[in-house]
Amino acid sequence: MIKIKKTEYRPAPVRETLIQMKDISELMIDLAYSAALFNNRELAEEVMELEAKIDDLVYLLNMNLMLAARDKYDAETLAGVAKVGSLTNAISDAAADIASLVIHGIEVHPVVREVFQRAEEHLARVVLSEDSILAGKTVDDLDLAAEVGVDIIAVRRGMHWHINPDKEILMPEDVLVARGTDEELKTLVKAAQGEVDTLG
Amino acid sequence: MIKIKKTEYRPAPVRETLIQMKDISELMIDLAYSAALFNNRELAEEVMELEAKIDDLVYLLNMNLMLAARDKYDAETLAGVAKVGSLTNAISDAAADIASLVIHGIEVHPVVREVFQRAEEHLARVVLSEDSILAGKTVDDLDLAAEVGVDIIAVRRGMHWHINPDKEILMPEDVLVARGTDEELKTLVKAAQGEVDTLG
Repeated sequence: MIKIKKTEYRPAPVRETLIQMKDISELMIDLAYSAALFNNRELAEEVMELEAKIDDLVYLLNMNLMLAARDKYDAETLAGVAKVGSLTNAISDAAADIASLVIHGIEVHPVVREVFQRAEEHLARVVLSEDSILAGKTVDDLDLAAEVGVDIIAVRRGMHWHINPDKEILMPEDVLVARGTDEELKTLVKAAQGEVDTLG
Repeated sequence: MIKIKKTEYRPAPVRETLIQMKDISELMIDLAYSAALFNNRELAEEVMELEAKIDDLVYLLNMNLMLAARDKYDAETLAGVAKVGSLTNAISDAAADIASLVIHGIEVHPVVREVFQRAEEHLARVVLSEDSILAGKTVDDLDLAAEVGVDIIAVRRGMHWHINPDKEILMPEDVLVARGTDEELKTLVKAAQGEVDTLG
């Protein structure tokens, strides 16, 4: 499932890369927990996609750090940055390990699930269909938080992730990751799959 | 600095313990990154406190899992839960390792800091003084997000952490962890230290 893929050098600002890694690793924890608590294989698979993304970013970070080092002082302090990168990779590996429990069918005991209440918020993923009323609009325009009650926390377009997707124009085949209650998420899924003409 | 402390058994719902561990580990990543990017030792020390808290919760989780297992089926599926717990511990260890770079004076290179813009949001901690106008009120009452622009993401009272502190009545000596821009955080610090009579 995990494709080993060579990461080619491209210039990338170190700080932005690090912050992207932090955001992705936090999203991975969120998704991995939801996957485990609700035995949701789809969410677990998104975690694996993000894990591949982090692997790519770690390579990219390290290549850019190497090219940034001009002297001993640089090397010493950039090694600290590389360490932060590799620790973030460890965080992402742990989240992927949680997800892989779900993928390998290791179920989490009912003692965990039985206290789940329908009213509680959790995560879900849905693929946007071509005839969805959400397509062609931004998350901000749609005002989904107010209209439906769900919060779109990430959008995946092919291999590309948008972690703060509010300004993104949603397109067919986008994978939306949303947080909300069961009811709210059902409403979102219907809208994303083109089953309704209006929101709310 | 880290006190090894025996965790005594107390009954704790497994799912709530897990979710608390998830919330704390996410907060730790947030704090550890802010500590590293801004070379902030105080934030790094809060990460170490949270690491001790996670260690305690892992013990508590495992003890409660052991007592919950009544047969082979229970043992098999509860082992999955224990694995999620130990992976969360690994996440928290990695965040603590990032913080310990800061505590041990391993500085993050200017290449990371130089792109920091004053307008960008980051984290800060502040201790509430007795004569602060914030004392005796809840975060919700104070409406800090609207009044000052800061978001209080956690409150520590002694060894006890409140991760979703909106309904907590703030008390002198509470440690507030807040997210905001430089300006906003300065306003909060003044209010927390009793230097102003009104907000905003």
